Formats: sequence, structure tokens, C-alpha cells
Amino acid sequence: MESTTERHLNGLNSCDSQKLWVDCRLPVKCSPVVTDSFILSNPMFDLQATESFIHQAMEIIMEEAVKKATDVTEKVCEWHFPEKLKELLDLELRDEGECESEILQRCRDAIRYSVKSTHPRFFNQLFAGMEPYSLVASFINETIKTSVYTYEMAPVFTLMEDALLRKMIEVIGWKEGDGIFNPGGSMSNMYAVNLARYRYCPDIKEVGLFSAKRLVILTSQESHYSISKGAALLGIGTKNVYMVPCDKRGKMIPSVLEEKIKLAKSEGAVPFMVNATAGTTVLGAFDPIEEIADICEKYDLWLHVDACWGGAALMSKKHKHLLKGIHRVNSVAWNPHKMLMASLQCSAFLVRDKTCLLQHCHSARASYLFQQDKFYDVSYDTGDKSVQCSRKPDAFKFWLMWKALGTTELEQRVDRALAMSRYLEQEIRKREGFQLLMEPVYANVCFWYIPPSLRNLPDGPELWEKLHTVAPVVKERMMKKGSMMIGYQTHCNKPNFFRMVVISPQVSRDDMDFVLDEIHNLGKDL
Amino acid sequence: MESTTERHLNGLNSCDSQKLWVDCRLPVKCSPVVTDSFILSNPMFDLQATESFIHQAMEIIMEEAVKKATDVTEKVCEWHFPEKLKELLDLELRDEGECESEILQRCRDAIRYSVKSTHPRFFNQLFAGMEPYSLVASFINETIKTSVYTYEMAPVFTLMEDALLRKMIEVIGWKEGDGIFNPGGSMSNMYAVNLARYRYCPDIKEVGLFSAKRLVILTSQESHYSISKGAALLGIGTKNVYMVPCDKRGKMIPSVLEEKIKLAKSEGAVPFMVNATAGTTVLGAFDPIEEIADICEKYDLWLHVDACWGGAALMSKKHKHLLKGIHRVNSVAWNPHKMLMASLQCSAFLVRDKTCLLQHCHSARASYLFQQDKFYDVSYDTGDKSVQCSRKPDAFKFWLMWKALGTTELEQRVDRALAMSRYLEQEIRKREGFQLLMEPVYANVCFWYIPPSLRNLPDGPELWEKLHTVAPVVKERMMKKGSMMIGYQTHCNKPNFFRMVVISPQVSRDDMDFVLDEIHNLGKDL
Repeated sequence: MESTTERHLNGLNSCDSQKLWVDCRLPVKCSPVVTDSFILSNPMFDLQATESFIHQAMEIIMEEAVKKATDVTEKVCEWHFPEKLKELLDLELRDEGECESEILQRCRDAIRYSVKSTHPRFFNQLFAGMEPYSLVASFINETIKTSVYTYEMAPVFTLMEDALLRKMIEVIGWKEGDGIFNPGGSMSNMYAVNLARYRYCPDIKEVGLFSAKRLVILTSQESHYSISKGAALLGIGTKNVYMVPCDKRGKMIPSVLEEKIKLAKSEGAVPFMVNATAGTTVLGAFDPIEEIADICEKYDLWLHVDACWGGAALMSKKHKHLLKGIHRVNSVAWNPHKMLMASLQCSAFLVRDKTCLLQHCHSARASYLFQQDKFYDVSYDTGDKSVQCSRKPDAFKFWLMWKALGTTELEQRVDRALAMSRYLEQEIRKREGFQLLMEPVYANVCFWYIPPSLRNLPDGPELWEKLHTVAPVVKERMMKKGSMMIGYQTHCNKPNFFRMVVISPQVSRDDMDFVLDEIHNLGKDL
Repeated sequence: MESTTERHLNGLNSCDSQKLWVDCRLPVKCSPVVTDSFILSNPMFDLQATESFIHQAMEIIMEEAVKKATDVTEKVCEWHFPEKLKELLDLELRDEGECESEILQRCRDAIRYSVKSTHPRFFNQLFAGMEPYSLVASFINETIKTSVYTYEMAPVFTLMEDALLRKMIEVIGWKEGDGIFNPGGSMSNMYAVNLARYRYCPDIKEVGLFSAKRLVILTSQESHYSISKGAALLGIGTKNVYMVPCDKRGKMIPSVLEEKIKLAKSEGAVPFMVNATAGTTVLGAFDPIEEIADICEKYDLWLHVDACWGGAALMSKKHKHLLKGIHRVNSVAWNPHKMLMASLQCSAFLVRDKTCLLQHCHSARASYLFQQDKFYDVSYDTGDKSVQCSRKPDAFKFWLMWKALGTTELEQRVDRALAMSRYLEQEIRKREGFQLLMEPVYANVCFWYIPPSLRNLPDGPELWEKLHTVAPVVKERMMKKGSMMIGYQTHCNKPNFFRMVVISPQVSRDDMDFVLDEIHNLGKDL
């Protein structure tokens, strides 16, 4: 028994020099209490060693993940194929732990071989860039480790979330509303489907869809796949998502929406919700909200706007016209972690409502969390609005940066990013071998690079087939070189093109020029 | 136009001395390109100012959120009522931003008025304690800001997630399996419902539930509310969750489960899934998995185990008997952020399957993410297994601490936490005025404190009514004092009792003694 006890006291790591979890208050008290062979007299936490470890790790993070990651001369990512990377990372989890220096090296490696979306040449997704205020807020979140379900557990973040949601509601232009932050826009869109369904028939929450009429959601062909994923998850079914065609700019055609609504009704189904998109994923298109709202009012349908990507334009006097009519809609999904650069994830679901719909739709009233005999106003316990239980204080990450930058600078950022996209667009128009898919209206700039060998081919299947293979090869080369990251894809049977997304104020005109030069350099032999 | 340009160049904050976002590469190049009134020649990012800000913030975090938060002599939280706290926080978001020193003060305030779950006297939830390795991993996640959907975007974290899931599957005792990390156990439980439904009838994904037979989920009365929330969200309905009664220890009664299955069938409904709980939220009870698995095999039902809380016992040779039979089940939800102390959130959903069920059930094949003509093996693009789009690299937070501690020390932690709970239990038995609700089997210790004034009352409605008010008042007093945090609640019409949860190795016998002393001190006058 004694040897076991000693083993517990001494810890089990092989590197004895550096341990965070040892008995740190030796000598042991006079009468150690042994329970189940453990001496429990002392905490096993060594604050000094912990502090030292965090300090060392932070030095690595500052050097590798702040300085190098934002340095345009460094790689966006050091690429390796999976089998090679597995070797480099030594992923196996063993019985024995590793010592501090080994763990710190693992931190270095994790950063080195990861994609840094904070790099100025990262244009691959709808998020990018380093936002120090938001980053610091996320560090605080991680360190104090709390969950936003009750005021008691998260007094500060409950109030911040509320203040932030109110401000966002004001920006949208609603007189009243409610909302919640979710782990990602897909969840927010699913919330919209669930709320729309609840408004249509609250009984579904209890009895399910088994005796319900077939429900139909309408959304554009260009909308995000989370609408379909949500329909599948929520038991509505992907086939009951009626896809409304778009015009050539990627915007939903309202007249066809109305036809589809009539079609659903003529089939005996119940259209109950329309999803409009403000800023589509690929083309950055904005559905015409005003016209769609007219139709939704006519047919009494819930109108949700997936503004995860395009919501940022609401911050800009110059660009908010893109979302004209949003004050009329029932709900909005808006991700400040995209264009506004809050730390991942920061995703708001907002609903124009004063009847506690969010609460009624999602509540389960767990007795161990939402006691009604608390000593404070339990209307501040917002957790039952969520389908999650533990929920991260994501609102803080946006609140702190908003405090630091002010509405004015947030507006500037949006305006600058879109100005930068316009610059890129102009350059693409100027340069030989580059061709826009269409004139962009937002920060998505979609274009082809046509290598010299293809430039004299006539427009037609042969060119398209060959062009289709260019972007994947250029992408492969840029990944292996680590010089930048840009997405590519096909769309509506068109050959693969690049989708460049400009967000971060770290980016300059030079980076735009570099991207086009680099694509040419990587692809000119194709 | 020029003044606008200058305004942009000079930034807009009122505190000019400290800005992270200014044009930092002056002088401007010879021919600044002006687009939409923005000079775009230079990035607006000042690395030095950014580094300095992060350094200063980290000092605050180390002092306030690491040192003080783990110091037993400091408050768990400085409590204020919502109206007062709103004043203290100055929540309003304004046009003008604030300067660095103001933002740093806001960081201090956010920490000060927040609950620190890393405090040694925090016992309020199923998570607690400071885990430096996991914390550092979360800092890295936040800093490099990536999302786990494709290998290309998250090479390191894709592989780590895979390695970790395989290890967890090995610990469960399955020969093969699949899995994914989710933002919380509620999501994992919902995944189980969706997969079970998909296995029962894959067509539901496309056509919905409208023509399906009524589906029924069976779960115990003590199970987590996410099963009901999931049933509501997934269109199954809360009434189609059949609650199976538990024995007095909170364990599902298998014979009644079988009766309920027969009942559902006799009603013409289709029972398709049983949820067993390993570690219930309130009592820490473990449903008898072996017996439930026998019944599920007999009726061909999907058996899911919600082991979000109790899964940690699998790490312990001494305690894993609590989950005997788990190798036979179809899926498991297991949150390393609970007993194993990974940073919030770290929640795994695991499924015993070799048919890509997770992928088939959830996939939407978005063309902009999951291109099939990539230059690497796209089976590493795991994002379509998720109902989310952006997904945080939560696996890293557990992988790094497992590397550092080794399986052996993880086991020690579980054993020690449970030994500590046994010590607490013994103390409660010894002390006058304390009474256990029942003998605990896990880290939940539920008990009443009976103030001296009530000790001579006979057991009966009068005592119960008075006792019911004791815990809420003691809780109010401990919150206002900031000395500790313990949950209370009612359960099965019993008067309010305390639910104490012991997790962290920061905790010693002294803390257990303190808790009982403090409850007495706070409640002896009642």
C-alpha cells in the first residue's frame, strides 16, 4: 500500500524535472488521510510549474503563431501528405506521459504543420486574419472556462451576449428581438428552421412530424448546404427543401420562388419557411430580400436570412443596401467570425419576436440548472433557449473587439475589404490570362486563370475541359510551396475557377498583386 | 476625398497612442492606389503593437485568471446582481473605439466578475479545474484559427482527431469504429438519435418523417434533457421519448424498459433506440448496460450510451466495471471536458460501425469544400460527417494533455477524484446535520444540510418543506461571499439538496472539510 501511495505522491511522468501535477505542499501533514490508497491531504497542483509552462508555451505561440503566422515571408502552412505527417507528429497516445520540453515541441509542431488562417496570404475560406482583441477575449474564455447557461455561472457573459444581441438587432433595424450565439452558422440556420416550424405548429415539439402535413422549405440553389443538412436532421427531409433557381448573378428569382410555393401547395404540402441568403458562399450574391419579403407576407411564410457571410455589410453605410428589407424578416443568422474577424466561432442567431419563441421552442426546464427558487431574476438564465447544454461565451469575443474598434472602425474594415476586392477585380480585368466569372458585389472574387497554352483555344468544350484541370494543379503547387491559400471549385457545370475571399486589414494591394503573379507563375506551364 | 483617405490612414480611435490597426508601413509608396476612397498600398496591421497588446493581456490573464483563479483564498466569483453588474461593465457598444488601456481594464473586469471554474472551490457543474496542457492547446487553436472540415485546412487536427478517436474506441473496447468531436454532449446525443434513425430507415434523410411510423426513443427518467431536446429538434417529439423509471439509486430498470418497448409496439409505434446513461447528471448513476444490451439485441434496437459524464471511468481499471457491457453498444457520447478536465468544449461522439454511417447520414457534399479532384486522399476530409460546417479542433485539447499525462496519470486522476468523493461521503456520514441522499458510486455526492433548528423535527412534510428552503439560501450566501460554488436542486419531490461534484486534482481533503464547515456556517441560523 505504501509504495502505491508514494507513487501517487511522486507522480508518474518519466521526466521528473518538470511536472505540473505533483503534490506541492510537502511535507505531508501529521496524519495523512488515506482513502482508496490515495493520500488526499494535499492538492496535486503546482502553480509555479503551471505558470512556467504557460509562459513558455505563450512564447512559442507568440513566435510561431503570432509573429511567423502573420509574416508574409513565412509559409501559410508547411504541407505534408497524411502518411508523412502522421510520422512527423507521432500521434500515438501512450501509458506514460511526456515531459515538458517534449510537450512544448509538440506545440511547435502543431503550429508549424497547421494552416494559419491569420496569414496575410490566406484567402481560402470565409474567415481570415488576426484579430488581437478577439483573440485575447478567447484566451480569457479558455482560461476561466465557463459555460453560458445560467446567470450564476456566467454573469458577465450573459449580460454581454444580451447587449451584443440587442446592438445587432438595432443594426438589423428591428424594434425588438431575441437571439443566441451558436457554434457556427449551420446551427443558426437550423434554429431558424426549428423556430419557423414551431411557429407554424407548436405541437410538433411534442408529437413530432408523424401526423403532420408534409412541410416544405424554400431556398435558393446557391444557398448554403446547412439548409439541407438542417432539413435532414430535423426530420423534414432534403427532398422537401425546394431549390429555387437563381439568376446568372446567383440571386434567387422571386417569381420562381412564388411558383415553387404554389407548386408545394398544389401538391398538398405546407411551405412554411423561406431562406434567403445574404452573401452566398461561392459567388457572394445577395438575394433580393424586399421582394422575397413581399412574397412571404403574401403567403404567411417565415422568412429567414442566412447572412452568416453578408451580415457584415449591415455595418457599412455604403454597402448595407445589399440587405435592403432585412428589417422585415423573421430571423437572421450572422457570423461575426467571418468578415468581421471575431475569433472562431462567433455566430449569432437573431429572431424578431417578443413572445419568447426561442425559449418556448427549445426549453426543457432541467431542474438541476434552471431552478426557479434562485435568489436572482431567473429570466437571466438564458441557457434553455439553446439546444446545447454547455455553451461557450462566444459573444465576448465580438463584444471586446467592438468595444476596442467602435462601430466606425468595424465599418471601415468592411469598406476596406470590399475596396480591396474591387482592386483585385480591376487587376483581373487588366491582366492577360485572367477572367472573371462575373462582376463581384461582395468580397468573393471568382475568376479563371488561363495558362498561355490555352489562350488561343476557342471557347468550347475542349477549352473548358482543359481549363477545368488548371485550378486543382495550381492549388496543389501553392499548397506544397506554402505561399498562399485560395479555394477553387466548379459551379453550374463551369470549369474549376478560383474563389478568392478578401477580409483582413493585414492585406495590402501587394498581396493582391502577389496572388495573381503567383497563380501565373504556378500555372503558366500548364 | 483626401480627408476621408487621411482619416482611413490615421485610424479612428480616440487614444492615438496605442493602436493595433493602423497603417504601419509608412511612408506610402510613390503612387498610392485609391479604390473606393481607400489607400490600399499598405496593410493596416501593426505587429509590434499587436504583440505588445497580447503580452499585456497575457500578464493580466496569468495574474487574474491563472494565479488568482486557482488561489483558494480568492473568490470563485465576485457576485453582483444583473442591474449592478451592467453598470460595472458599461456594456454599450459605441461608434468610437476605446484605447488599449481601457480594453485591458475590460479584460480585468471580465475576469473579476466571472465565475472561475478553475477555482479549487468550484463544485457546481460536471466540469472544474485548471488543466494547463489542455489550456495551452486551446490557446493554439484560438491563435491559428482553423476549422476542421478538410485535411487541407486542418492537416494536424484531422489526424489528431482520428488518432484520439481510435484510442477512445480502443478504451471502449470496440474492434472498429468512427467518430467526431462536437460542441457539447447534447449534440453528441442528438447525433446518436439521428444515426439510429438513419440505420432504421435511411430514406428519412430525404423524405422526412411525414409518412413514417411513429418512432419511439427509450431513455431513463434520470437521463440528460438533451435526449428530449434532441427528439424535439429532430421532429420525433418529446412525447415519443418514453421515460423508463429508475430504481431508487437512479438506474434504469431493465424489466420496465422491456415493458415500455412492448407498449410502444402494441401502440403501433416503432421503438428504434435506447439511450442508457453512464453517469447521470444529478445522482451519478450508471444504467446496467449489459442487461439493456440484451434487451436491445432481442428487439434489434440501437443502443446509445450517454457517457458524457461517466465515460472517464473507462480510464480506470478500478472503476470501469461501472460501464460493463459498453463494448456491445452502438454509440457512445463521452465528454473529456468533464471528469478528464480537457478545456471546454471537448465532446466526442463515437459509433461502432465500419460502413461510414456517420458520413452517409450527415453528408451534403458541398462542392466548395469537398472537391473530389484534390491532389490528396479526400477520405481525410472528414467535415461532411458533421452537421456543422465550421468546427473547432477540440480534439487537440485532449490529445495534448493525454500526451503529457499518459494514460496512467489520466487513470490516477479519475481514481483520485473518486477517492476524494469517498472521503467527502465519509465526512458527511460523520457530521451532525448532514445527510446523504444515497450512497454515491461516482463523483456526485448529494446531501442535505439540516440546520440545528430543524434537527429535532420528525421526518415528514413540515421538515421537508422547511428543509427545501435551506439550500437556496445557503447558495445565495455562498455566491455573495464568493467562497465556493456548489449546485443544489430538488429531485423526485425531495426537498432541495446539495449536489457536490469532485473532479480536479487541485482539490484536497481540506477543501472537502471547508465545504462542509462553510455550509454549516452559512446555514446554521436557518
